[in-house]
Amino acid sequence: MKNEGFRYSDCPMHRSMAILGTKWKPIVIYALRERTARFGQLHASIGSISRKVLTTTLKELEQDEVIFREEFKEIPPRVEYSLTERGKALLPIMYELVKWDKEYCEISEHK
Amino acid sequence: MKNEGFRYSDCPMHRSMAILGTKWKPIVIYALRERTARFGQLHASIGSISRKVLTTTLKELEQDEVIFREEFKEIPPRVEYSLTERGKALLPIMYELVKWDKEYCEISEHK
Repeated sequence: MKNEGFRYSDCPMHRSMAILGTKWKPIVIYALRERTARFGQLHASIGSISRKVLTTTLKELEQDEVIFREEFKEIPPRVEYSLTERGKALLPIMYELVKWDKEYCEISEHK
Repeated sequence: MKNEGFRYSDCPMHRSMAILGTKWKPIVIYALRERTARFGQLHASIGSISRKVLTTTLKELEQDEVIFREEFKEIPPRVEYSLTERGKALLPIMYELVKWDKEYCEISEHK
């Protein structure tokens, strides 16, 4: 997804979507809400994401300083992902989205 | 983007992303925050979206009952888009995203 033009937009929603605008990114951020995780743990907890897409998603979120990648020099080497301050600041928004889903999408009367 | 598997997920974030998970959908919702708009007005206000992608985005948001499409039987016929209750309920979340962008992305010291 070519988001480069979005990054320097005058519109804050365009800029936010340059960072978050794929279906996987909010899901990865949400998966990291309570703990750091290794690649395999993330892959297992998210379920339906391919390893290739998860790799790209993590790389882009790291570049955008939403998540932090820490490499432990062990044998075998260990890598853990966690949210940065910028990433943690998105969590209240994710929780609101979860509430919205429960209120407006789960109950068929509201559909 | 095949989101069908997401719709029936146990995870509310997966379900939300089935509805919102493209960079354009939150932008279109945000563009409709204060007023109804015709296709051409939306296209002009969003700027960088192609007519084809805007058409698909509007169709999907309408199917998901986030926006409402009203056809006025005039000559020439007029079509206006507005947010449904489900769509309006997303606005506070969009405003939080705008705040996040201003706080964590605009100021280079935070980068």
